[in-house]
Amino acid sequence: QINGDRLWESLMEMAKIGPGIAGGNNRQTLTDDDAKGRELFQKWCEDIGCTMGVDKMGNMFATYPGSDPDALPVYMGSHLDTQPTGGKYDGVLGVLGGLEVLRTIHDLDVKTKHPIVLTNWTNEEGTRFAPAMLASGVFAGMHEMDWAYDREDAEGKKFGDELQRIGWVGDEEVGTRKMHAMFELHIEQGPILEAEEKDIGVVTHGQGLWWLQVTLMGKDAHTGSTPMHMRVNAGLGMARITELVHTVAMDNQPDAVGAIGQCNVYPNSRNVIPGKCVFTIDIRSPHQEKLDGMKARLEAEAPKIAEELGLGIEIEPVGHFDPVTFDEGCVTAVRNAAEHLGYSHMDIISGAGHDACWINRVAPTSMIMCPCVDGLSHNEAEEISQEWAAKGTNVLLHAVLETAVV
Amino acid sequence: QINGDRLWESLMEMAKIGPGIAGGNNRQTLTDDDAKGRELFQKWCEDIGCTMGVDKMGNMFATYPGSDPDALPVYMGSHLDTQPTGGKYDGVLGVLGGLEVLRTIHDLDVKTKHPIVLTNWTNEEGTRFAPAMLASGVFAGMHEMDWAYDREDAEGKKFGDELQRIGWVGDEEVGTRKMHAMFELHIEQGPILEAEEKDIGVVTHGQGLWWLQVTLMGKDAHTGSTPMHMRVNAGLGMARITELVHTVAMDNQPDAVGAIGQCNVYPNSRNVIPGKCVFTIDIRSPHQEKLDGMKARLEAEAPKIAEELGLGIEIEPVGHFDPVTFDEGCVTAVRNAAEHLGYSHMDIISGAGHDACWINRVAPTSMIMCPCVDGLSHNEAEEISQEWAAKGTNVLLHAVLETAVV
Ligand SMILES: NC(=O)NCCC(=O)O
Ligand SMILES: NC(=O)NCCC(=O)O
Repeated sequence: QINGDRLWESLMEMAKIGPGIAGGNNRQTLTDDDAKGRELFQKWCEDIGCTMGVDKMGNMFATYPGSDPDALPVYMGSHLDTQPTGGKYDGVLGVLGGLEVLRTIHDLDVKTKHPIVLTNWTNEEGTRFAPAMLASGVFAGMHEMDWAYDREDAEGKKFGDELQRIGWVGDEEVGTRKMHAMFELHIEQGPILEAEEKDIGVVTHGQGLWWLQVTLMGKDAHTGSTPMHMRVNAGLGMARITELVHTVAMDNQPDAVGAIGQCNVYPNSRNVIPGKCVFTIDIRSPHQEKLDGMKARLEAEAPKIAEELGLGIEIEPVGHFDPVTFDEGCVTAVRNAAEHLGYSHMDIISGAGHDACWINRVAPTSMIMCPCVDGLSHNEAEEISQEWAAKGTNVLLHAVLETAVV
Repeated sequence: QINGDRLWESLMEMAKIGPGIAGGNNRQTLTDDDAKGRELFQKWCEDIGCTMGVDKMGNMFATYPGSDPDALPVYMGSHLDTQPTGGKYDGVLGVLGGLEVLRTIHDLDVKTKHPIVLTNWTNEEGTRFAPAMLASGVFAGMHEMDWAYDREDAEGKKFGDELQRIGWVGDEEVGTRKMHAMFELHIEQGPILEAEEKDIGVVTHGQGLWWLQVTLMGKDAHTGSTPMHMRVNAGLGMARITELVHTVAMDNQPDAVGAIGQCNVYPNSRNVIPGKCVFTIDIRSPHQEKLDGMKARLEAEAPKIAEELGLGIEIEPVGHFDPVTFDEGCVTAVRNAAEHLGYSHMDIISGAGHDACWINRVAPTSMIMCPCVDGLSHNEAEEISQEWAAKGTNVLLHAVLETAVV
């Protein structure tokens, strides 16, 4: 059994770096605070005898040795970066829960056949640099590294330059590591486990996603002296596409979601009809046909809305992953661990994208979820109980030990 | 007849101060560039023997003497401040056209009974500090000066402090000047004169306006793992209210307009359902009943939209003026001048708010409009022809001379 108090103390210690404005965190990827979080994590890992490897995407790999030098390592991990108004647990629990697993193994002097590697994946959130899960995506061969280096934030700063600036470009080639298996512990970020009163979600699948960045081009003009029939109002187009996204998601119930999270209006002045709007559609489903169908419908109907209003339109995909089916062996290891520990559990589909979704393409992978209060995440008020955190971490411990062979 | 070349040169000279990024201007009120524009204007006025008075709102009054010391002055003027992505003529033509009138009178050594005063009103645009026409509003007794001083820009800087900082707090009490009449020359900022092929708009009325700032409070949550029925999506509420504003304006055709120009979404992240949106509705009509009716309908229906989505809502009026009927004598003076000069003209209603709309409450007032290309304004691409500018200024010259009595 892991030490729930020690785990909680580490979570609270990490949360001091890059505090938010309402009790959560703003520790966005490749900021100075991200660098501080990485240093603290490295120190904690080295304190228990791990060696740290870093690859050219800044992914961190802390290795705890096994007894068989030829055995491929069992991986654990998640991410330490947060949303601009994010919580203290999204990603962080999976990294520091993994650390607690290693500390427990170290305390009890357990020897496994396979080495165990704990990972912090760079830029999981995708807010500062789209797409999300960027560095695990490069690791899994989904993106070219040069392309990833060229991703720009809202100020035009490039991923590669910022990684260099904070001093975390490692020397390892990305994606050369081979894995025996990989487990990611994460908060659910949704309301199902709490509603069903289950301690553990055994994650069997993950939703697929498309991020479609839409640019509408209208004509800046005076809100007072431009007659209604002469307007080319990009803001009205954005409103209609927002409604369309909602309708498309509702028409695909259950098992589909859709919304627009990011909207930028130009020139954003009270008495100027918006001449340009840039916004990103987020649609998801665990079913490939639904996901494809929703995307096709949006790509067909959004241009019609634009045309009716006389607007120019560009639709650019800026993020994508297909629905995921996790590895049966790893899923069973998680279910067995929950069963063995006597925790209530249920099979669940991940609503969010995770680094595990990419790693599943190159290694046997699965995920463990624990509940979060009101299903709230991507919000500074994100909360979990100390007990939920401890139970999730115990399941991680047992799934890893079973797979790494004691 | 005025000197059209000299007028155009002055317009181009002023446009060098606070240039925009696309050929227009960004000379927002109470910036360093606003101060530079004021200095140049003062120099030009003093060059032809005017004396400059400045009041506590920074309004500038350049007096050209008349022959009767007891006669009240005839006023002309507009504003030198611009939108953040504004044109070179909006406001500026009315000030520098007035300057060209004084230069012509000075050249020809014409003596009028009434003195003539040329004004630059502070903060007409209202983008940096809402509401628009702030300083002419204080002059006309519509706002308290202390309240005006407390208006804040997006960075929290106060109007009063910024006026002090750029060195343009004058010593005159605001609104103590009495006027025989006031004329404002302005570009139409709409497409009607160009479409009707008229050189001159004789402005008989002005639209009334309400700016309603709406705040919608939802719940930030993950776009992937939050089921549709658990969302409290402020962005969807903003979309529906945008559509409502459009519908309300269309239901009141003709003679009504409505749009949302400024939208801010929080936290504005691709994978976060918007937890808060703040945006400003702009509705206008020349008919009091229509304006009142549109406002009442929005205030009744917007909260219903919010309620259906589970959103909190606050609606705060941040700008307002009633429809205006300009003074019959001044309107006739403008029409006679256009007629006398043989220019094509038509009666027109101002779609935008202008300083003249407030001054009309305390003195006989009217406006002269000239066309602008494609009706485009509040856009750096705003354009007028040199001929339109000259014709409008000639009408201003003749209306002022008739009223000031040669
Ligand atoms: N877990 C998480 O929030 N990942 C970011 C990518 C996504 O939006 O699903
Ligand atoms: N003329 C002008 O654009 N004034 C600003 C106030 C308004 O929006 O009408």
